[in-house]
Amino acid sequence: MTYCIGLLLREGLVMIADSRTNAGVDNFSAYKKLHTLAHAPDRQIFACSSGSLSISQSVIGLVQEGLPAIESGEMNRTLMGASSMFRAAQLVGEAVQITNRTVGAALAAIHIDSSVSLLLGGRIGDAPPALYLIYSAGNFIECKSESPFLQIGETKYGKPILDRGVDFDMPIDEAVKIGFLSFDSAMRSNLGVARPLDMMAMRADPAVPILTHRIEPDDAYFNALSSTWSELLHRAIGAIPNPPFMEAWNE
Amino acid sequence: MTYCIGLLLREGLVMIADSRTNAGVDNFSAYKKLHTLAHAPDRQIFACSSGSLSISQSVIGLVQEGLPAIESGEMNRTLMGASSMFRAAQLVGEAVQITNRTVGAALAAIHIDSSVSLLLGGRIGDAPPALYLIYSAGNFIECKSESPFLQIGETKYGKPILDRGVDFDMPIDEAVKIGFLSFDSAMRSNLGVARPLDMMAMRADPAVPILTHRIEPDDAYFNALSSTWSELLHRAIGAIPNPPFMEAWNE
Repeated sequence: MTYCIGLLLREGLVMIADSRTNAGVDNFSAYKKLHTLAHAPDRQIFACSSGSLSISQSVIGLVQEGLPAIESGEMNRTLMGASSMFRAAQLVGEAVQITNRTVGAALAAIHIDSSVSLLLGGRIGDAPPALYLIYSAGNFIECKSESPFLQIGETKYGKPILDRGVDFDMPIDEAVKIGFLSFDSAMRSNLGVARPLDMMAMRADPAVPILTHRIEPDDAYFNALSSTWSELLHRAIGAIPNPPFMEAWNE
Repeated sequence: MTYCIGLLLREGLVMIADSRTNAGVDNFSAYKKLHTLAHAPDRQIFACSSGSLSISQSVIGLVQEGLPAIESGEMNRTLMGASSMFRAAQLVGEAVQITNRTVGAALAAIHIDSSVSLLLGGRIGDAPPALYLIYSAGNFIECKSESPFLQIGETKYGKPILDRGVDFDMPIDEAVKIGFLSFDSAMRSNLGVARPLDMMAMRADPAVPILTHRIEPDDAYFNALSSTWSELLHRAIGAIPNPPFMEAWNE
């Protein structure tokens, strides 16, 4: 299993990914799922991947090495040649489709699920940061301000806190904190999601360097966030009145 | 979609079910999913159902009308003849299997998913209340005090609050409140879960009558619970420090 989120705010872009990969519960290990796809003066592009590890590594590899040339003769089929984040999402979507037709078909023949989905985020040129979710068929959607986050993998446990807490106009560090609370819920409820967590944050202002950070299994800030959150939730539960229609029955 | 939970505490048993049934998003209606299967001096048995409405109605009908007689000649194949809640769970599981072989097979032939799952809770004789989850194959598990709740339907959104909040030794009315908070999360994140909610509560002390209650769409207590919870969550989020490693980057 896997859990990754992307948050697209007025202040910038955040992507967070866990690192647990497992085949069954007795064969698990840590793989980085937040990939740097381009890091050049005119473009910084990142991806998080979920699903079959062999498929997602093939997709990332294909995007980095370059897709096969097409009839029109276009040669530079890597993200370095993409003129916008939309074109970048198209290229990654095409890499998913190519991988589905080759490795995916071979796995399907032996009844192994090979679906994969990705978050693609970053900036090309002077355009503001953008965030896309690329589905297993290679189609994709773009994140918009009305619903300023996208998730892949084990998405449901950590969605209520994002639904309630994340807002396009909030400060970026507060959004990272809510992202971590979402991971805390997912990790409590599913053993297939686990630290280390990798994150990147990109300010809308292109002059600010990109921040990357890893939350290790013993990270003191995350431990404090998790235990304080538990305590505050218990206090919040206590502050809500019990059902009035049970009062008479309880006596 | 559907969401139902059962809570088994030292103080007693609680079952809560939503009532939304839908086929697609443009064909939905309210059906009661908390069924009274037996209400007699020596036994009170309730079930919540999730999945295909026609299958779950067939299962409930079969249990109430009586299962076909078996070779050993046993005649009273209803819950009135069950000597324990374990036997009751076996009977309901068998009703699921019979329905799968008949209606389920007909639906499978036209590629319609017909899986169904149920929570079965109640008491027979002097035994303490018991709670079972009956899967779509008719097999089942019993709820135990280490993990004092079971869920069916759209379970994930509302699981984190149950994981953190529910404890076998807590007062029964507080557990109902946490159950409602779990429904609040599920209803926010999935349109297929909606009020009215039906609930029953059974005290471990058999002398106390069973409490049943319906939370209507405009229920004032539930509305207050939902808005207070939102406000308390926002306050709790605010009380947690932002990531320290972002401080220098934010300046």
